[in-house]
Amino acid sequence: MNILIVGLGLIGASLAKTLKKNTKHTVLGWNRTESVSVRALADGVIDKTGTLDELIPQADVTVINFYPEAIVPFVLEHRDLFKKHSIVTDSCGIKTKICRELEKENLDFYFIGAHPMAGREVSGYDNALATLFDNASFICTPFDSTPRNKTDALVGLAQEMGFARTVVTTPEHHDEMIAFTSQIAHVLACSYVLSPLAPYHAGYSAGSYRDVSRVARINADMWTELFIDNKEPLVREIDDLVSNLMKFKYNIINGDSQALHDLMEKGNRIKEEIG
Amino acid sequence: MNILIVGLGLIGASLAKTLKKNTKHTVLGWNRTESVSVRALADGVIDKTGTLDELIPQADVTVINFYPEAIVPFVLEHRDLFKKHSIVTDSCGIKTKICRELEKENLDFYFIGAHPMAGREVSGYDNALATLFDNASFICTPFDSTPRNKTDALVGLAQEMGFARTVVTTPEHHDEMIAFTSQIAHVLACSYVLSPLAPYHAGYSAGSYRDVSRVARINADMWTELFIDNKEPLVREIDDLVSNLMKFKYNIINGDSQALHDLMEKGNRIKEEIG
Repeated sequence: MNILIVGLGLIGASLAKTLKKNTKHTVLGWNRTESVSVRALADGVIDKTGTLDELIPQADVTVINFYPEAIVPFVLEHRDLFKKHSIVTDSCGIKTKICRELEKENLDFYFIGAHPMAGREVSGYDNALATLFDNASFICTPFDSTPRNKTDALVGLAQEMGFARTVVTTPEHHDEMIAFTSQIAHVLACSYVLSPLAPYHAGYSAGSYRDVSRVARINADMWTELFIDNKEPLVREIDDLVSNLMKFKYNIINGDSQALHDLMEKGNRIKEEIG
Repeated sequence: MNILIVGLGLIGASLAKTLKKNTKHTVLGWNRTESVSVRALADGVIDKTGTLDELIPQADVTVINFYPEAIVPFVLEHRDLFKKHSIVTDSCGIKTKICRELEKENLDFYFIGAHPMAGREVSGYDNALATLFDNASFICTPFDSTPRNKTDALVGLAQEMGFARTVVTTPEHHDEMIAFTSQIAHVLACSYVLSPLAPYHAGYSAGSYRDVSRVARINADMWTELFIDNKEPLVREIDDLVSNLMKFKYNIINGDSQALHDLMEKGNRIKEEIG
């Protein structure tokens, strides 16, 4: 197959490297800043580049690696270029808004939203890795109307690429779970380092500070879109988190050792069970 | 010197292993469950064991590795056994309550509270490591009246053991910083996994979930004491964290991209600067 990677930043170029490493497919690549596509070609990260007008019609699978707000406009703007019955997918971290908007369109190709679950605190082509998805989950969120064989083809490609796990679900369930597993983790890491004491941590910190604060190194442009596009599930998670923090606070203030112990024992048990 | 390690759990036995590996001092060891001392002796983790009546009078430095509430009673109960002018220290995670209580006593040895900053999600003798403190900070909190040469001797021992950094500060400053770098990190990891969605994370989680939730595997008995004994600084940290989470929440609800972006950019900048 010809697989077109649109956007050769951290995720796009890592997908291209993974395709080259683990599959025999031909990798076409395009990037808004042309010098990056030229380097990717020279580095052997892609097999071919060119203009979108040249590349899109050749692609059996197109993977769009943009920030959330740019995906629907890109698909609609180029809707007449995609090969009929081909698969068009993306890699961004929210799915409901994008999928439900494109579901209303009468497209003659198949858009299947996807989320390869990996990232780094750094971004851009230079930080892309052929190993980024080694232990990662690949989630895709077809429409109700998506033919089963198209979803299977995309899932099969993810398996061929070496994703550790593939999940097919609804955009809504994806967004609800991601609000918990990823978005709130970034919100709380960021909220944590905003403490007035953060600048003085040297000499007083160990593994717990390091791990909990790691994802505070955040791409503010991208996460602003991801958070606002996933408002309800994320606000629900913030509310749950604050309510649990308040339980800690009042048990500590009241010196209620038993209730505090029970709360931690519950957290400890959950973490032991679920990993 | 004869160095007595009282309590051969994760921290005590790791300190003993580190002393054996990096120094020439004689390591005496005692544990409430005697079979552990016997194993430690057989394993070469300590050089000598016996009863407290036999061991304490021989020690130039005694390190007490108990939960916070047990430290002051242990010191007072054995006050007549410690060698005159010897150093008695501990390894627990809060310092003000312990140090200010012992400061009032007229002791003829020198109690210097200490906190070797490392831990694991698992506990007990079997999980002790000779490498646990390799990149760790050693914090000690002498009284105003502690002679400088005694503090220097303890700091020198920590350096000899291979701690990456030593810090001398007040018990109050220690407790304030630890509320931020360690305690609140455990509170929020635990609060995080108490979300109703936590049990369903498989397939939807990646590095951010893994890192932020790691320290939710918590020793509830120990942390209950640590939290309650450090009430004010910890409640201040919880309040700061909740206030930052609320800023995220209301910026998301209001769709205020600019304010949300500014908040994350600030968090990102702090994390980049302070590590």
